[in-house]
Amino acid sequence: MTTFDIVIRNGIIVTATDKYTADIGINGSKIVDIGFDLKGHETIDATGLLVLPGGIDGHCHIEQEEADGTIHEDDFVSATGSALLGGTTTVVCFASHVPGRGLVEQFDAYREKGGNSRIDFAIHQIITRTDEQTIRDEIPVVAERGAAGLKVFMTYDDFHLTDGQFLQVLEAARKSDIIVSVHCENYDAIRHLILQHLAEGRTEPHGHATSRPPAVEREATYRAMTMSELVDQKIQIFHVSCPEVAEEIARAQSRDVKVVAETCPHYLTLTEDDLKRDGFEGTKYICSPPLRTKAAQDGMWQYLRSGVISIISSDHCGYTFDGAVGKGRHGRDADFSLIPNGMPGLGTRLPVFYDAAINGRKIDLTDFVRLTATTPAQRYGLYPEKGTIAPGSDADLVLWDPKKSVTITNALFQSNIDYTPYEGRQVQGWPVKVFQRGVLAMENGTVIAQPGTGRFLRSRRG
Amino acid sequence: MTTFDIVIRNGIIVTATDKYTADIGINGSKIVDIGFDLKGHETIDATGLLVLPGGIDGHCHIEQEEADGTIHEDDFVSATGSALLGGTTTVVCFASHVPGRGLVEQFDAYREKGGNSRIDFAIHQIITRTDEQTIRDEIPVVAERGAAGLKVFMTYDDFHLTDGQFLQVLEAARKSDIIVSVHCENYDAIRHLILQHLAEGRTEPHGHATSRPPAVEREATYRAMTMSELVDQKIQIFHVSCPEVAEEIARAQSRDVKVVAETCPHYLTLTEDDLKRDGFEGTKYICSPPLRTKAAQDGMWQYLRSGVISIISSDHCGYTFDGAVGKGRHGRDADFSLIPNGMPGLGTRLPVFYDAAINGRKIDLTDFVRLTATTPAQRYGLYPEKGTIAPGSDADLVLWDPKKSVTITNALFQSNIDYTPYEGRQVQGWPVKVFQRGVLAMENGTVIAQPGTGRFLRSRRG
Amino acid sequence: MTTFDIVIRNGIIVTATDKYTADIGINGSKIVDIGFDLKGHETIDATGLLVLPGGIDGHCHIEQEEADGTIHEDDFVSATGSALLGGTTTVVCFASHVPGRGLVEQFDAYREKGGNSRIDFAIHQIITRTDEQTIRDEIPVVAERGAAGLKVFMTYDDFHLTDGQFLQVLEAARKSDIIVSVHCENYDAIRHLILQHLAEGRTEPHGHATSRPPAVEREATYRAMTMSELVDQKIQIFHVSCPEVAEEIARAQSRDVKVVAETCPHYLTLTEDDLKRDGFEGTKYICSPPLRTKAAQDGMWQYLRSGVISIISSDHCGYTFDGAVGKGRHGRDADFSLIPNGMPGLGTRLPVFYDAAINGRKIDLTDFVRLTATTPAQRYGLYPEKGTIAPGSDADLVLWDPKKSVTITNALFQSNIDYTPYEGRQVQGWPVKVFQRGVLAMENGTVIAQPGTGRFLRSRRG
Amino acid sequence: MTTFDIVIRNGIIVTATDKYTADIGINGSKIVDIGFDLKGHETIDATGLLVLPGGIDGHCHIEQEEADGTIHEDDFVSATGSALLGGTTTVVCFASHVPGRGLVEQFDAYREKGGNSRIDFAIHQIITRTDEQTIRDEIPVVAERGAAGLKVFMTYDDFHLTDGQFLQVLEAARKSDIIVSVHCENYDAIRHLILQHLAEGRTEPHGHATSRPPAVEREATYRAMTMSELVDQKIQIFHVSCPEVAEEIARAQSRDVKVVAETCPHYLTLTEDDLKRDGFEGTKYICSPPLRTKAAQDGMWQYLRSGVISIISSDHCGYTFDGAVGKGRHGRDADFSLIPNGMPGLGTRLPVFYDAAINGRKIDLTDFVRLTATTPAQRYGLYPEKGTIAPGSDADLVLWDPKKSVTITNALFQSNIDYTPYEGRQVQGWPVKVFQRGVLAMENGTVIAQPGTGRFLRSRRG
Repeated sequence: MTTFDIVIRNGIIVTATDKYTADIGINGSKIVDIGFDLKGHETIDATGLLVLPGGIDGHCHIEQEEADGTIHEDDFVSATGSALLGGTTTVVCFASHVPGRGLVEQFDAYREKGGNSRIDFAIHQIITRTDEQTIRDEIPVVAERGAAGLKVFMTYDDFHLTDGQFLQVLEAARKSDIIVSVHCENYDAIRHLILQHLAEGRTEPHGHATSRPPAVEREATYRAMTMSELVDQKIQIFHVSCPEVAEEIARAQSRDVKVVAETCPHYLTLTEDDLKRDGFEGTKYICSPPLRTKAAQDGMWQYLRSGVISIISSDHCGYTFDGAVGKGRHGRDADFSLIPNGMPGLGTRLPVFYDAAINGRKIDLTDFVRLTATTPAQRYGLYPEKGTIAPGSDADLVLWDPKKSVTITNALFQSNIDYTPYEGRQVQGWPVKVFQRGVLAMENGTVIAQPGTGRFLRSRRG
Repeated sequence: MTTFDIVIRNGIIVTATDKYTADIGINGSKIVDIGFDLKGHETIDATGLLVLPGGIDGHCHIEQEEADGTIHEDDFVSATGSALLGGTTTVVCFASHVPGRGLVEQFDAYREKGGNSRIDFAIHQIITRTDEQTIRDEIPVVAERGAAGLKVFMTYDDFHLTDGQFLQVLEAARKSDIIVSVHCENYDAIRHLILQHLAEGRTEPHGHATSRPPAVEREATYRAMTMSELVDQKIQIFHVSCPEVAEEIARAQSRDVKVVAETCPHYLTLTEDDLKRDGFEGTKYICSPPLRTKAAQDGMWQYLRSGVISIISSDHCGYTFDGAVGKGRHGRDADFSLIPNGMPGLGTRLPVFYDAAINGRKIDLTDFVRLTATTPAQRYGLYPEKGTIAPGSDADLVLWDPKKSVTITNALFQSNIDYTPYEGRQVQGWPVKVFQRGVLAMENGTVIAQPGTGRFLRSRRG
Repeated sequence: MTTFDIVIRNGIIVTATDKYTADIGINGSKIVDIGFDLKGHETIDATGLLVLPGGIDGHCHIEQEEADGTIHEDDFVSATGSALLGGTTTVVCFASHVPGRGLVEQFDAYREKGGNSRIDFAIHQIITRTDEQTIRDEIPVVAERGAAGLKVFMTYDDFHLTDGQFLQVLEAARKSDIIVSVHCENYDAIRHLILQHLAEGRTEPHGHATSRPPAVEREATYRAMTMSELVDQKIQIFHVSCPEVAEEIARAQSRDVKVVAETCPHYLTLTEDDLKRDGFEGTKYICSPPLRTKAAQDGMWQYLRSGVISIISSDHCGYTFDGAVGKGRHGRDADFSLIPNGMPGLGTRLPVFYDAAINGRKIDLTDFVRLTATTPAQRYGLYPEKGTIAPGSDADLVLWDPKKSVTITNALFQSNIDYTPYEGRQVQGWPVKVFQRGVLAMENGTVIAQPGTGRFLRSRRG
Repeated sequence: MTTFDIVIRNGIIVTATDKYTADIGINGSKIVDIGFDLKGHETIDATGLLVLPGGIDGHCHIEQEEADGTIHEDDFVSATGSALLGGTTTVVCFASHVPGRGLVEQFDAYREKGGNSRIDFAIHQIITRTDEQTIRDEIPVVAERGAAGLKVFMTYDDFHLTDGQFLQVLEAARKSDIIVSVHCENYDAIRHLILQHLAEGRTEPHGHATSRPPAVEREATYRAMTMSELVDQKIQIFHVSCPEVAEEIARAQSRDVKVVAETCPHYLTLTEDDLKRDGFEGTKYICSPPLRTKAAQDGMWQYLRSGVISIISSDHCGYTFDGAVGKGRHGRDADFSLIPNGMPGLGTRLPVFYDAAINGRKIDLTDFVRLTATTPAQRYGLYPEKGTIAPGSDADLVLWDPKKSVTITNALFQSNIDYTPYEGRQVQGWPVKVFQRGVLAMENGTVIAQPGTGRFLRSRRG
């Protein structure tokens, strides 16, 4: 009988389709066998545990450079440690496109930075300029070097593209066969509403929500999909926050527009009331699009069920609360428009979503895997190495204890970030062991994988 | 028994609600009595004729100055003559907002120009800049002086506003309680598609249609309605060309967005195939949004019936075919993007729409009056002087022969414009006499009203 | 100068389109002139009052025979008095189709009964059987004799038709060009739910609402419209109670199904909470379809505004509270399923709806007239004699004081019915004088018109 | 190294999620291992072939008794042979509920009949009566004995239930936790239209389509979903034929009604024009709901893609063309209403759908497996033994040659049925070997499995 390097014995294996009990045989970095009574040099008993494909977080801002030269405080070492603690083995993060340097240069430099990662990573390339060099010369190279996708913004002072620029990016993306993901909010409308808020003295954190109402996101989403339709190029709507937006996506999908969509755990578990927390506390919940009402939150689940929204990512942003370039960087009396937009979520993504989905909303386990691992892997060209459990796939595996109850505290995630929006939330279901390419990378809250263990993943699409 | 100045005897009086046979007594400029066996110093026998409120054309470009200083060749004298020949007694036309001069200055100058009009006129004020003087100082003055509405463009090099500018106009309009009408097409997308067409050598007139597909209009309409929603300010979507756009308007109306809509006879009777006419002929049919398919044309009628679209205007554009600043101004081999956008339609509006609606699509006569006279009058603050037949209203009346068949030729309209897109079309139903404020202004194809007869109409809303 | 029999001077005349101040000249039963400074043998000063077309209530159960031989206690004398007190000058009421007698016989007998009416009346003919005599021989005769429409039921033990019977009626109606109005609720589903309620001991009045949920009405409405579509015959959905139903009607209208719709003041002003009033009190609010939630009530107004629902009728039911065949006929401890379904509303229809629409929801006065008089007249073939104010129309006029505040009590309506569901409601806007065919019929709360004054109105369609 | 009974080497394994190359190890009836370089006593080289889970046909009429005592000519021996030839290893077929015998008796007798099956089978139990014995006593027993579901008809003389009966079945099903599948067409409307057709002499086969228009199916579907909603019981809409129906299902799903849907290859590949084939030929294409237009066919694919429709079954009907109880049983001049409704499709289901979906419409292979095997297995409680490829599952496997082109002829399927509606159609993709529970059951067009090999499958739900 063959003896495998490692055998994970008797776990409940879950894929996007199947749920069954068997042993997994691992040789080197690969799953090589699934069967019964397998023999291994090392045997891990997974009885009573779920064995899931390692989580894939398709949307993380890590050690990212901003236009003003500041760098997100959550670096690769810190962020990917918290990822492992939460059951995630692959991240797709973002190379910047700041002024003064070329696109390829920035892509390569960011890939270099990723050399410190503890887990495998792929790269979305942000596009903020559409000069001829970028469009004609550099996007093809970045695609060729394996970028998972391009990312454009319809808002933010330093990032937003005009519709004309967006169309140029879409054309270039089509030629290079690479997906374009979009942050959809109407820049002008938000600016207008922010100025109005400030003029009226409405400077508190909750003004962030009222100055970016659903209509602002819905409009930009509709426009982005129209651009996609005109160019016949596939796009992804990032971080859909509310049913009004999802409804428009469903309508576009039903007339065959090439659009897919993502949402994040916070839109499914938090609400805009969190922005009203005492004083500066509310700023912890500032992200864009903003958190919405409880009714919106409820509505979002239906669009997850129907498949209109097909990926759950964290939109992890490495802003600290008290750190140098954190939420308070402009002082604790700064108006909401000056607070960095974004929340940490890389570590909490799977436990928070698992608990809400499986225990709370009766989503199937197979759908949990589909939303958090399989579809991200497929969409970003990482499949079948990543995102499933099958012979030939990478042995990225999470042993998940469905009975384990944990009260979330930020300390659990051991990162540079000094808070979590889920502090004190009790969840049931928790990762107890994580293997990355056949090697134990996390065990019972201890990160084992060293910085530099992670590899850059070339997307097969790009 | 009272003897009225004029009695129109025994006609079939049609309003937006009623259809009945009676006499109308006129004293001076006013309808003062509706009854039976009225006695007049002058009696007009209307037996067998419809007596309609004078047509109100809410959207006409007359003697308008372009950004480059050229002036539409169809001046007030010419245009308002053709209006009378077609049964229209009131036009709402456009004061420009060209560079280098103030808004109020241009409004006043345009009102002055209107001094040559043969019929009453109101003015939409175009807004192309949003500097503080325009927004804060001048829009209120123009509203105060009686502008019927403001007009903004989302496309055209010299005119289009950004979303931010549009929001500023909407805020100003709300403060002055004046409606904002919008030309909805996405500027960037059109530019992108035009450049693509030219690069591919697709320069013929039909390229005008394919470079401005329905999606481009639908997107801009959706965006305009979102802006309206954000500011809670009423807008009007001008010249809706296709059901895709109307569907979005219906959806917005159903959630109580303050949006109303207009379409034009050409979207209901012509198609994009007309752009394929031999050689330069096709340019006669270049207007924006462009003509659409036969299926789109059919679909539009349903939205007229359901009330989603509530006004029929001409969008009359005074571009000649052979004249100095006409369709051929850049030569007969100019690509489609250089051809002026617009078609004449002031004279033909009522006969063409009447025939298509009443004879072709079985629309009620009362709805014909509602769409072409009553609602425009109400929307632009001209009612009840204009737009209905009731004691106290202006005696603007059309005697319409429902049996008269006419083959349309451009000559019938005696204007500066040297073509009509409806040349050779046979229609049944024709105006045979027109009264303006109690005075016979047109009779059997002869214009009687002299230049200068028309008066400026202050909108009650502005 | 002509001297008219009566002149109504200086009122604000309101039609479905117009609102203007003028005098109305009446000769005999007709409006013959509208003008200024008219002279009359009798002059009624209407300064400060609205002058409206007499209200037309298109849906009233008066002195109607039930299958068990009982007769609604509100007879023509009583009911039409309360109608006048509320500003209504025309009713459309229902001839029964009880077992054992022919359709024409019942139509004629009911028309005879109407000989006692104080106001003009038209007749809907109920159809409960579809034997060959009814379908082939009698429906054409009833149509020929001027029935305003046919009425079928999809529920109630004694009345409901199968789909097959319904199709037969629609075919017959198409041949006779007569509209079919439908009570849409699913009979089987209601029976099922009632039995369930009783089995669970849920016998209180509010069980009436929960045993007839919106889905039951929505389904039947959808089915009725499908039948209409298959036969291409126009139908009217009676008493739409909630937006779920209206949404389906809107969808059918948008694909050109020949369907129109009615609702009633109670669905716009009362809610199912009224069914929870103490003890037997709740039974006063039992009607079918039942009253709905506050959210449903709010939603209904939007469908009135958009024109999907185009008539406001009372669905007046002459059941007393304490009378012999009233709500308590089976004793005060009877379960909800035994309580007669229906509420009085003939007198209160206009004041209650006026106050809710004009003062509460900012509906235009012209739309008030359209919904309560003009469209009913047009739909039932009574126009233009009824439903508008124009020379040639019947002088059915209401002088309405828009400033008059009244607290509704049942006594105001002086009928056989011993309660009103609006007891104690304060409204502003009240009819102070009513003319029927040129004769003063009600003045300041006193009925003047005698029984027998009313005439049967032949529908022009039937 | 372990030696398995059989190893299927190097095939491209496809599940509803995954596609990868590996070996499958089989011991006895079970898949016990998936890995590389597996050793078997017997080795099947699958290089270049797809290895799919055995097809599951969720809707087959086999050897079924009609109300008149006739039996479908395609018996278990014949039908299950053709199933194997087409790659299907499990059928769900129908126990009758004819008059005079009890439900359990018929269920047991039918299960007995299935003793002749060559492949595994589950049973839907038809319900045509709702007497107390059926509802209270027998449905629970049938569910307990493992019925896959209940089946009700909304049309057909001998079968259709009233809404009231349908509600009773739904209540009983809810108590026994068993799904109810529904044939949705409006019985009364069809009867009405058939009589109309016959009266007009429209007796040819195409009358079958025009007498059962989409509205008839759409209405019944809407009604069935309402019943499901009222009882909160899961239903399945069988054989959805057109997008109008699918649209209503999508709407119901989006408001969380428990409804799932099935369609059949013929609605995706044939059209109503086939009914116009010469003379009696057209009757081969008579099935219910009828075939629809080409546009409807195109529209259906979108609803497959979006997941609104989630199962592809054959709705196989064992009516011969020339046989004793076949299409011509009433003579070749019988009008369309007398022709048995249904077409054979058990053998052709997978090849025809594969070719249309994979080669024609670019559906993913994983979706092909999901639609034809995995979801049926899950829905009918047969999973995970059936419907996937994983250790522990039954070794029901199809080796499918994606390159093999075949021209379909009826002879290929070796059944009692004397025609196929796909005669002469060329398809690419064909099953070359089939294993049932680890035993070779079909090879290159030769059926190997003997009658009686198949086993009855108890549904885990029932």
